[in-house]
Amino acid sequence: MTRSPKQENQQDDPILEEEEDYFDYYFDRPGSEPGTLNIDPDALPTQIVLIDYNSDRATRRTDISPQECIPYLDTESVSWFDVQGLGTENILQQVGQICQLHPLVLEDVVNVPQRPKMEDYKEQLLIIVQMVLPNPGKEGFFNEQVGFVLGQHYLITFQEEPTRDCFEPVRSRIRSNTGKVCQLGADYLAYLLLDAVIDNFFPVLEDYGERIDILEDEVLKNPQRAILEDIYDVRRELLALRRAIWPLRSTINALIREDTSLISPEVQVYFRDCYDHIIQLLDIVETYRELSSSLMDVYMSAVNNKVNEVVNLLTIISTIFIPLTFIVGVYGMNFKVMPELDWKWGYATIWGIMILIAIALIIFFWRRGWFDGFYFIRKEKKR
Amino acid sequence: MTRSPKQENQQDDPILEEEEDYFDYYFDRPGSEPGTLNIDPDALPTQIVLIDYNSDRATRRTDISPQECIPYLDTESVSWFDVQGLGTENILQQVGQICQLHPLVLEDVVNVPQRPKMEDYKEQLLIIVQMVLPNPGKEGFFNEQVGFVLGQHYLITFQEEPTRDCFEPVRSRIRSNTGKVCQLGADYLAYLLLDAVIDNFFPVLEDYGERIDILEDEVLKNPQRAILEDIYDVRRELLALRRAIWPLRSTINALIREDTSLISPEVQVYFRDCYDHIIQLLDIVETYRELSSSLMDVYMSAVNNKVNEVVNLLTIISTIFIPLTFIVGVYGMNFKVMPELDWKWGYATIWGIMILIAIALIIFFWRRGWFDGFYFIRKEKKR
Amino acid sequence: MTRSPKQENQQDDPILEEEEDYFDYYFDRPGSEPGTLNIDPDALPTQIVLIDYNSDRATRRTDISPQECIPYLDTESVSWFDVQGLGTENILQQVGQICQLHPLVLEDVVNVPQRPKMEDYKEQLLIIVQMVLPNPGKEGFFNEQVGFVLGQHYLITFQEEPTRDCFEPVRSRIRSNTGKVCQLGADYLAYLLLDAVIDNFFPVLEDYGERIDILEDEVLKNPQRAILEDIYDVRRELLALRRAIWPLRSTINALIREDTSLISPEVQVYFRDCYDHIIQLLDIVETYRELSSSLMDVYMSAVNNKVNEVVNLLTIISTIFIPLTFIVGVYGMNFKVMPELDWKWGYATIWGIMILIAIALIIFFWRRGWFDGFYFIRKEKKR
Amino acid sequence: MTRSPKQENQQDDPILEEEEDYFDYYFDRPGSEPGTLNIDPDALPTQIVLIDYNSDRATRRTDISPQECIPYLDTESVSWFDVQGLGTENILQQVGQICQLHPLVLEDVVNVPQRPKMEDYKEQLLIIVQMVLPNPGKEGFFNEQVGFVLGQHYLITFQEEPTRDCFEPVRSRIRSNTGKVCQLGADYLAYLLLDAVIDNFFPVLEDYGERIDILEDEVLKNPQRAILEDIYDVRRELLALRRAIWPLRSTINALIREDTSLISPEVQVYFRDCYDHIIQLLDIVETYRELSSSLMDVYMSAVNNKVNEVVNLLTIISTIFIPLTFIVGVYGMNFKVMPELDWKWGYATIWGIMILIAIALIIFFWRRGWFDGFYFIRKEKKR
Amino acid sequence: MTRSPKQENQQDDPILEEEEDYFDYYFDRPGSEPGTLNIDPDALPTQIVLIDYNSDRATRRTDISPQECIPYLDTESVSWFDVQGLGTENILQQVGQICQLHPLVLEDVVNVPQRPKMEDYKEQLLIIVQMVLPNPGKEGFFNEQVGFVLGQHYLITFQEEPTRDCFEPVRSRIRSNTGKVCQLGADYLAYLLLDAVIDNFFPVLEDYGERIDILEDEVLKNPQRAILEDIYDVRRELLALRRAIWPLRSTINALIREDTSLISPEVQVYFRDCYDHIIQLLDIVETYRELSSSLMDVYMSAVNNKVNEVVNLLTIISTIFIPLTFIVGVYGMNFKVMPELDWKWGYATIWGIMILIAIALIIFFWRRGWFDGFYFIRKEKKR
Repeated sequence: MTRSPKQENQQDDPILEEEEDYFDYYFDRPGSEPGTLNIDPDALPTQIVLIDYNSDRATRRTDISPQECIPYLDTESVSWFDVQGLGTENILQQVGQICQLHPLVLEDVVNVPQRPKMEDYKEQLLIIVQMVLPNPGKEGFFNEQVGFVLGQHYLITFQEEPTRDCFEPVRSRIRSNTGKVCQLGADYLAYLLLDAVIDNFFPVLEDYGERIDILEDEVLKNPQRAILEDIYDVRRELLALRRAIWPLRSTINALIREDTSLISPEVQVYFRDCYDHIIQLLDIVETYRELSSSLMDVYMSAVNNKVNEVVNLLTIISTIFIPLTFIVGVYGMNFKVMPELDWKWGYATIWGIMILIAIALIIFFWRRGWFDGFYFIRKEKKR
Repeated sequence: MTRSPKQENQQDDPILEEEEDYFDYYFDRPGSEPGTLNIDPDALPTQIVLIDYNSDRATRRTDISPQECIPYLDTESVSWFDVQGLGTENILQQVGQICQLHPLVLEDVVNVPQRPKMEDYKEQLLIIVQMVLPNPGKEGFFNEQVGFVLGQHYLITFQEEPTRDCFEPVRSRIRSNTGKVCQLGADYLAYLLLDAVIDNFFPVLEDYGERIDILEDEVLKNPQRAILEDIYDVRRELLALRRAIWPLRSTINALIREDTSLISPEVQVYFRDCYDHIIQLLDIVETYRELSSSLMDVYMSAVNNKVNEVVNLLTIISTIFIPLTFIVGVYGMNFKVMPELDWKWGYATIWGIMILIAIALIIFFWRRGWFDGFYFIRKEKKR
Repeated sequence: MTRSPKQENQQDDPILEEEEDYFDYYFDRPGSEPGTLNIDPDALPTQIVLIDYNSDRATRRTDISPQECIPYLDTESVSWFDVQGLGTENILQQVGQICQLHPLVLEDVVNVPQRPKMEDYKEQLLIIVQMVLPNPGKEGFFNEQVGFVLGQHYLITFQEEPTRDCFEPVRSRIRSNTGKVCQLGADYLAYLLLDAVIDNFFPVLEDYGERIDILEDEVLKNPQRAILEDIYDVRRELLALRRAIWPLRSTINALIREDTSLISPEVQVYFRDCYDHIIQLLDIVETYRELSSSLMDVYMSAVNNKVNEVVNLLTIISTIFIPLTFIVGVYGMNFKVMPELDWKWGYATIWGIMILIAIALIIFFWRRGWFDGFYFIRKEKKR
Repeated sequence: MTRSPKQENQQDDPILEEEEDYFDYYFDRPGSEPGTLNIDPDALPTQIVLIDYNSDRATRRTDISPQECIPYLDTESVSWFDVQGLGTENILQQVGQICQLHPLVLEDVVNVPQRPKMEDYKEQLLIIVQMVLPNPGKEGFFNEQVGFVLGQHYLITFQEEPTRDCFEPVRSRIRSNTGKVCQLGADYLAYLLLDAVIDNFFPVLEDYGERIDILEDEVLKNPQRAILEDIYDVRRELLALRRAIWPLRSTINALIREDTSLISPEVQVYFRDCYDHIIQLLDIVETYRELSSSLMDVYMSAVNNKVNEVVNLLTIISTIFIPLTFIVGVYGMNFKVMPELDWKWGYATIWGIMILIAIALIIFFWRRGWFDGFYFIRKEKKR
Repeated sequence: MTRSPKQENQQDDPILEEEEDYFDYYFDRPGSEPGTLNIDPDALPTQIVLIDYNSDRATRRTDISPQECIPYLDTESVSWFDVQGLGTENILQQVGQICQLHPLVLEDVVNVPQRPKMEDYKEQLLIIVQMVLPNPGKEGFFNEQVGFVLGQHYLITFQEEPTRDCFEPVRSRIRSNTGKVCQLGADYLAYLLLDAVIDNFFPVLEDYGERIDILEDEVLKNPQRAILEDIYDVRRELLALRRAIWPLRSTINALIREDTSLISPEVQVYFRDCYDHIIQLLDIVETYRELSSSLMDVYMSAVNNKVNEVVNLLTIISTIFIPLTFIVGVYGMNFKVMPELDWKWGYATIWGIMILIAIALIIFFWRRGWFDGFYFIRKEKKR
């Protein structure tokens, strides 16, 4: 018996409902004051990691207080405040005050998840994206919201979890001063981080490509109920990914077209490259969605086909034996007067008649091609 | 036996047809004069509740007559006339005269339900929205039309029912003078009320998300006829919600872009936030619609699958026993001359032959994988 | 036995093909000269009814000749020439000459049906719409084309049939001088008539809403072949209605935007209201189309479900009795040597074995949930 | 037995593959020089038919050589060169040279079929359309490409076949000098011919309307395998027609909007009428496509329904007789000790029991409504 | 037994996974520096082939080093650097430096496959397309990316494989100085190569047209499981082709509209022709996709139909013989007292009754049309 990979994972993994939250957006409690922060009691405590660099040097300070950030805000060097964990309200409020964030900006980065978007607040750009990471050893993916607030010489990022992100290569490039990152400003840093977020969609999607490939094989070889569930899950998760990627398109497009002094023309060229990648992502998601939708059709056809073959067999057996059983039943009757029973060759004759009927029916089915199905399957087995 | 939640509710609830009116629009009796008010005989009597406030104080007067409203219209303080119940024609007509409403405006707020829309009458803005509230203890939702007429220093709202609305948090904020509501004008009040209406769609939609989750489990575990009905109801109600939300999008968009002096730039920023929420709502509705549509496919596949398994079993049993029954029938015949019957080992031999046939067929089915289905199901039970 | 309402009507109604012509457009005999009038031999003879009015008085003259129309054309009072029946070519030609209609205008109003459209011929506006009326006592609807030619002080309407139209309320309003009709010009008259045409779509559509409701109930309770036909008819007729309404949208939109002196700004506001109603109509048609499309899916699922239950029962019965029948067959054999037959308790033992097998199989089916379906149905019956 | 019309035709018609080429476009052998003419060896030899006319007279010369065309090119009278058959390369090349056709123009009119399009070469307009003619006595239609090259005082048309076209009414109108054709220029002639081409789509489409009507009846009355094939063919051919009509829309639209001196404003009004007809055609094609797509659904439902009824009958018969057969089998056993066999009323009792069982089962099925299907069908027969 | 062509090929072809990479795009390792070249270890070593020509002469040099290219870059003659194989990083880097390619350009042509696109870098135009070639002797197609960099007097092309391309006809035309290629500049060369790429899609698509035709016949004659797989493969590969062609449309459109000095107006006219071909390609792909989608429906219907016929037969046989078998079972009982058994005409009577029952049932089935299916099939066989 074949088991789909999904089935096996679910047994290892007791948290079955995790998939549900791919589809939720944060929404305010109806009637709450606009701008209210809503701290999730399970959210991790907030820490701020500061990386400050220019073309000469790079400093890194972990777990600093909001007050300690103040001196870095106005220097010419690029300061990246990485706010990790959204659980400590007063730190978040202080960050908001110190960095002069509009109340709606703070609301959008803290009350997660929001729809990806870009908003221009003159002195600052707010960018909301969904970061998607492969979930090693499990199906599906891990996702969290990343909020960017881009100022003249600084970038503030807000992440839900400190442990998992895809920014490590950027950090190490700053540390080792490789590439152009240290020559350019906070806008290039924002580009690098956004690009990292976007590039991480690819391996996640590739995973779905592989799952679809496996499902294709399964569906045609052995259409089973578990496959149905898997196809449905794939469609559901692709829908979630599409919802994360689709608004990214207009977000990055707005960044390219927006007439803002916060992004230099030199960096805008790079965002064009980002946009290209998003188009590719959408292209892949749509392709996979179409494939998974065809797969459902193929599954249904394959099941129908199997029913067809089974019913075929049933009908062949029944059509041959039911009349014969009737005949033998006739001569099992206990009538006093049944002349055939006394004939010497009666038994042999009746066998002859029954064999003739059986052969006639077999030829009939043969010429109608009802045995093809069986022949075909056997051939397939040999391959 | 599993029962879907819908089934249970329907038994408690004798009013089964309530769902029908999600889809109706009001339409004029063909040939009636434009501007005619059409009072529904079941409509509740009209009452006016006035809340008048500025940054210093807030007054509330219930059940005042239209004439009593006149002095409040031109004061600098913000006056909110909440017209509840659309059953008393002459009060409505007087409100129309006193507030100088265009006949088409009065028609639109009284002849409910209309499609959500925004219309600019220079001195006044008309906004029509559908308010949707969760229906506690029941499936589906409660909806009524809310009409807003926004003037320079006043806001008139028209509701069908006085008992249920989602404006209480706003009223209490005015009463306790919290937040910015008392600092800003009638346009901010209109924003707060619209925002309350929009925020109330979220819990209603979340309900559908949960219903879909439950249906998913049911469909895959035990595809039954009642589930079909439930899926259909979900789709039908999502269609109704979409019809309420979709026109909201262009309504609010018009509010943002309209070049009107009635909405200050400061408040326009807040409407941008509203617009964002509507996009999220549409996103969710579309996702749920796609999921419920996939669910229908999954349901059909699951039913087919079940048929397949059942027919499988029938065929296995029939194919094994029908030939055997024929054989035993043969030796039940009463022919005089049947040499096998007289053999000493005849009975044993025939048993031997029959057991061989049965084993051969079982091996045949086994190798074709026809028993997989059963194995699979049993395994599932154990989980 | 349930019969769908459609079935009953068809028996009353011998003209079954009537539905076909919902989908036809008029087309010229290939190669005919542009501008040729094509008089249908079955068309009714042409009569002209004139209503001439201003704010003081209203005159009505029936069955006047085209020549008698001339004096009314240039007066300041509003003249409505209602040309009823398109069967008398020379009257139509004379009307064309007297009113200086462009040959293509005359062709469009006479060679029915055309696609709804608006065309601006400087001195005159041509508006073509489809008038749809409920068909009392029958399913479906009655439709005819109405052509409007709007001049400075006159309006010419062309109808196929004099007996049925929806303009009576307008006529009586002119007669009794109620409302604004007599204060305003021919453009307002055109608005009133168009509005009457559009308002008449609503009750027709409502009819379809009811038919869909009935079908929903039927489909889930008792999916039968006749329902299939009904669903198909509903979809087909909704398609026809959509084809009548959809082009109306751009027609009225053109009237609102067109920069023509024939429609005063005061009346243009009213056309905006018309436009609103058309959007509502489209909204309803699309909703019904989606519902009827879901209904087809539900129907198929319901039929599949029924097959499933039936096959379930067949399998249970067969799986229990086929092996038992084999066993009793065994002991019906006539072998000389069958030791069991001679045992004293042989018969009782065999009954015991058979009862054990039956119980085992019933438990097996029970635990697999195969009896659920039956339980469920019985429960439903009780409701 | 019902036979669909398609089946009958196919037997008359040995050329079954004809339908294939509805879908082909001409394509250059990869890597061939742009502008190469590709003469199909089966193409008919080229003849030129000249019709030269002005408001006074009309001359017609058949089968003239390209050189003989030269004097007609620059005269004020309208010259229509009708190039019939695309098989003689050197005549085509000469026409190209004499009329100063751009190499790409010649390629487009000779290498058929191309996608319908309009191209403006300053001195000349190139218009490519597909002419579709009913195929009398057969299903499907006959199509060929017609290329128009419109100059100041001349029109050159290129047709694949001389025998079949739809231009005869235009020729006879020129001959008899009826209508406006002789008063106006070559642009009006182009309009008349294009209009003839477009008008010929209507009867072809009407044919499909009738085929769909027939299929509807068949599908609901007697869903058979041949109908499936017919539905598929209709869809396939409608797809082909849509591909011919759809690009016509932008072609004619371009003619209306193009700012070219070759088409006078007076004639442009007529092209607007053409455009209208194309919109109607598209409307009809889309409607038919939707209907044929619904038809496929209905077909599948009808087949399912039939299976349902058949399985119903099988189950009723089996469920009643299988247990009874078991019972009679029991008393056919040959046990020595079977007390019931010796009872006097044993036989009668067993009949009694069996009749009770049968009645109980029949009542059970009756109350479940399993006999409805049969009743329904019988009723239908009577209608 | 019929075998679909796909089945046969797969047996010849051990590399089954080849089809997978139709759907992959290249993506950067997440976090890699923008502009990094990623050399596939399996890529072929890089060679440069130079063709330098003007209207007088053409030189061809194979396998030259990047340094040897320098003198050709600035001459007036057209230089075509054909970089074949993307495996030697340092050669590629040198080409980038010598030709002053932007790092992102080099990345796009080397890190294959990218989405087709056109980008304007002032001095150079970058064009990325997918070249698709028929795969002789196999199903599917061979595809590789071709990157064009067009400068003032030179064209650089980047191909993955030197062995297979579709540029040979262009090379031979340069060699033999036929056509306009040697008169015009590098832009015309780019056009010729792009046109060759686009023209090669046609035979590949034609192949799919034939596969669909074959599948159509198979589906209707003998719907088997293998066909399902084939339909799915066709859909999947058409999806891949569409993904290659769709972005080409905007790429070439950009070339036509772009206001660049690198493409002369004379050559721009030719690109318009290219654009036309792409529209035709898309048209064909969409048609094939619709057909293959209908085919899936037809397949499912055909399978259902077959089940229907089979179940029909089963039911006829069962319904006739099961009651008869019951009757003969009755008279096989061994009751002491069974009066019928002793009647002289008992046996004959029972035969009479059984024959009557059988005839009655056959007439019943006949009148219901259950034998039609069989008749129909037999008729079909004769054709």
